[in-house]
Amino acid sequence: MIQGDDIHFMKMALAEAEKAAARDEVPVGAVVVSNGTVIARAHNLTETLGDPTAHAEMQAITAATSYLGGKYLIDCTIYVTVEPCVMCAGALAWSQIPVLVYGASDPKKGYSLIEQQLLHPKTKVRKGVLETECSSIMKKFFSKKRH
Amino acid sequence: MIQGDDIHFMKMALAEAEKAAARDEVPVGAVVVSNGTVIARAHNLTETLGDPTAHAEMQAITAATSYLGGKYLIDCTIYVTVEPCVMCAGALAWSQIPVLVYGASDPKKGYSLIEQQLLHPKTKVRKGVLETECSSIMKKFFSKKRH
Repeated sequence: MIQGDDIHFMKMALAEAEKAAARDEVPVGAVVVSNGTVIARAHNLTETLGDPTAHAEMQAITAATSYLGGKYLIDCTIYVTVEPCVMCAGALAWSQIPVLVYGASDPKKGYSLIEQQLLHPKTKVRKGVLETECSSIMKKFFSKKRH
Repeated sequence: MIQGDDIHFMKMALAEAEKAAARDEVPVGAVVVSNGTVIARAHNLTETLGDPTAHAEMQAITAATSYLGGKYLIDCTIYVTVEPCVMCAGALAWSQIPVLVYGASDPKKGYSLIEQQLLHPKTKVRKGVLETECSSIMKKFFSKKRH
């Protein structure tokens, strides 16, 4: 259910999307709000930066956590003009953000699709290389944490 | 099937993971190789940077694309000590990297799980806010592209 400030903040996200469009970037914008205050705003910069991770949401998450001084977006809401992709959904999951609000659905790349195939069709996978060592450095780390 | 240089490069990735461990970060390391040359190496810095997106893979992708001057990791291989999470798998998908090599599986957070629930359990979703506008700025952008 759409809430009182949703339109207000989505308009800000749209203003960010406009900035992206002006740069010839796929026009997606995002705004992070904490207790009624905007703490981050960003737009897609993948072409400008030549970086496939520079989605609006990713930058907004980085900026917001930097502002809050921690890696969780507690009590925050993110407004995104378009349904996040799998990468951004994963980042949002790590941030533990309690609320996501988006405008347009993305029937091609939106996270709600959750295709069987999550990696790119061209990507091949090999696994188990130095598995023991890779696993053991993790175990060592976590066992140290527990004691 | 494990290939000739896999052990060599995975050892480099492990050296990165060691650096993470030394910083009290979850010890994951990543290396990107292009035509036999290492073009990026990174380790998890989520705690140091207070940024949930600062996984080893994300930084390695950003560094590698910056080095190559484009947003695709054509002809590259990424070596990661641990199976990437959904966010990193999504980022790898965007990069169109042809080969992923990892060491340890991650039965809790690895992308190959593809749980039904991709966002954090605490995350609530509201959608359709300014849907028309959000959708139309996209359509406008792409229709301009086509002409």
